[in-house]
Amino acid sequence: MVEIKALEATSSDFHSFHHTVITRRALRADDVAIDIKYCGICHSDIAQVEGIDAVFHHAIVPGHEISGIVSAIGSEVTDFKVGDRVGVGCFVDSCGECKYCKAGQEQFCEKGFVSVFNTPDYEGQITQGGYSQSLVVKDHFVLHIPDKLDLAEASPLLCAGITTYNPLKRYGIGPGSKVAVIGLGGLGHIAVQFAHKMGAEVTVLGHSDKKRAEAAQFGATSYEVLRTSADFDKLNGQYDFILNTVAVALDLDEYLKLLTVDGIFCFVGLTMDEQKFNLFSMFNKQGTLTISNVGGIAMTQEMLDFAAANEVHPQIEMIGIDDVPNAYQRVIDSDVHYRFVIDMSTLD
Amino acid sequence: MVEIKALEATSSDFHSFHHTVITRRALRADDVAIDIKYCGICHSDIAQVEGIDAVFHHAIVPGHEISGIVSAIGSEVTDFKVGDRVGVGCFVDSCGECKYCKAGQEQFCEKGFVSVFNTPDYEGQITQGGYSQSLVVKDHFVLHIPDKLDLAEASPLLCAGITTYNPLKRYGIGPGSKVAVIGLGGLGHIAVQFAHKMGAEVTVLGHSDKKRAEAAQFGATSYEVLRTSADFDKLNGQYDFILNTVAVALDLDEYLKLLTVDGIFCFVGLTMDEQKFNLFSMFNKQGTLTISNVGGIAMTQEMLDFAAANEVHPQIEMIGIDDVPNAYQRVIDSDVHYRFVIDMSTLD
Repeated sequence: MVEIKALEATSSDFHSFHHTVITRRALRADDVAIDIKYCGICHSDIAQVEGIDAVFHHAIVPGHEISGIVSAIGSEVTDFKVGDRVGVGCFVDSCGECKYCKAGQEQFCEKGFVSVFNTPDYEGQITQGGYSQSLVVKDHFVLHIPDKLDLAEASPLLCAGITTYNPLKRYGIGPGSKVAVIGLGGLGHIAVQFAHKMGAEVTVLGHSDKKRAEAAQFGATSYEVLRTSADFDKLNGQYDFILNTVAVALDLDEYLKLLTVDGIFCFVGLTMDEQKFNLFSMFNKQGTLTISNVGGIAMTQEMLDFAAANEVHPQIEMIGIDDVPNAYQRVIDSDVHYRFVIDMSTLD
Repeated sequence: MVEIKALEATSSDFHSFHHTVITRRALRADDVAIDIKYCGICHSDIAQVEGIDAVFHHAIVPGHEISGIVSAIGSEVTDFKVGDRVGVGCFVDSCGECKYCKAGQEQFCEKGFVSVFNTPDYEGQITQGGYSQSLVVKDHFVLHIPDKLDLAEASPLLCAGITTYNPLKRYGIGPGSKVAVIGLGGLGHIAVQFAHKMGAEVTVLGHSDKKRAEAAQFGATSYEVLRTSADFDKLNGQYDFILNTVAVALDLDEYLKLLTVDGIFCFVGLTMDEQKFNLFSMFNKQGTLTISNVGGIAMTQEMLDFAAANEVHPQIEMIGIDDVPNAYQRVIDSDVHYRFVIDMSTLD
């Protein structure tokens, strides 16, 4: 066991964040110890902190977009060495034996995967995430960060990146695909780059003209403002695949109009808001509504390698550890271009 | 032009059905004339008759599950000869030139296909359907009914059959698939047979125990009664594919629980009722909600050939033409095992 510094929240009030000391387990034979250099801030970090008072009733050290350098390896670790550039994303353990784990889909592990923070691990300890100096993780759940990827830019890829890459791969997006991305935030600005680099023709759908220029810079060939039903009618039947990165309830009947025959509308933004639609909006073109979870470990490595090979660059705003409460509020206010990353050297 | 007998409704009241005389066009070079022997009664016939007063404001001759015998062919028809057993389903014309027509998906024709009844054809005449003595149809839209299929049993296949066969094929149902069918009516009893004969393990989901024995006779290996949330919980993650043949709004959050990872819930029953679900019901297993339209002509022929080769038998209740108003009410009351077919000789 080693003691390290971390930032934890003790209530749903973001101002409850304070410096603390936590412990990491002693290295097991298959463990990798990582000096954390950067950690991204994701909506789901915020959602969990917001749930402390009503749901969790214990302190949380968030953070699941982690990049850093290997500082030590267990005796049986062969795939990593000290000094390697590595990343850790949403989960740090799974049973390894069920059909999903064997198929590289650890996110669907029948035993239930262990999240990198705020879930009990298989020994019953609540995990503590990346807003901290270091992490000890089973080697299978550690990703190689290719040399061509900046270590700080890599961190948002570990959640926002795989969350958007996974559905694009699942539905075979490539040359000839006409993809629309709803929203140009943390997820959206990476989704546009991935879809563009996969060869698709990409449109960003927004509710104002504000981000038109930014959309183009990420590879979108068009930008459409959708305010009225007539705006939707003009785009009837245009897109094979619509990726919804916005976490609010949309008028699905309008968006279903935009699909081609057999087109797919895929959610990646989560909201508790009830979703509503009419079957006749789906019927004429056999539309589909689906959702994408995060991807498995092998797919996450593939995504990192793809990002490196294809110059996919998350745009980050680097902050110090004590800026976290302010950054949380700015994420809620959609005031970030496009992802906050904490420079973990500021935790010292 | 020839004059023939037909049954038409002049108002939304089913008792407005009465015998009348309509005309069929003179044979064009690519036309097939058909003596109608049988015509099935489908929910969508009823929906259109119910729409006369508010929507259509003209008389309707319904019927789109038509089987009969070729009585004459146009000069350029090579695929049919007088005396052939044939069928006509939902549509009788499409542009033939758009990408969907060329791909055999006439149901998505960009010009808009011509329904067999109650839509303007490309010359502007409102089509009149199968509750009549004969029909003249462009050869491309005429199906061969294999010798092994009973002509009366074949008629429900032209709509109920293709409507259920199409989604099973679209999603690759076969050996190893675990399929659930919601509802055991006109569509459901055929869907169970198709899925079973494709090699899937089939469960029927009902809200009472009433149809358990009937489900088994169509090839279902299990039957589940779903009344409470606990009933759904017991079947969590059981089915790759759920085909919903029931035209009422269901609790989709409960049904989404039943899917395996990447499982698909497919509507084939249509209702105007608003559909509602929560994204978290979809998220854990990446569930999908989709819908299936009817199939194209080539797929319809494939379906008929499959039914003949695999002993798929719609169960029909034969009625005379003057029983139509009563049969409509019984369909609404779900009092039919499982499809009404009109014996068109009773129209004489």
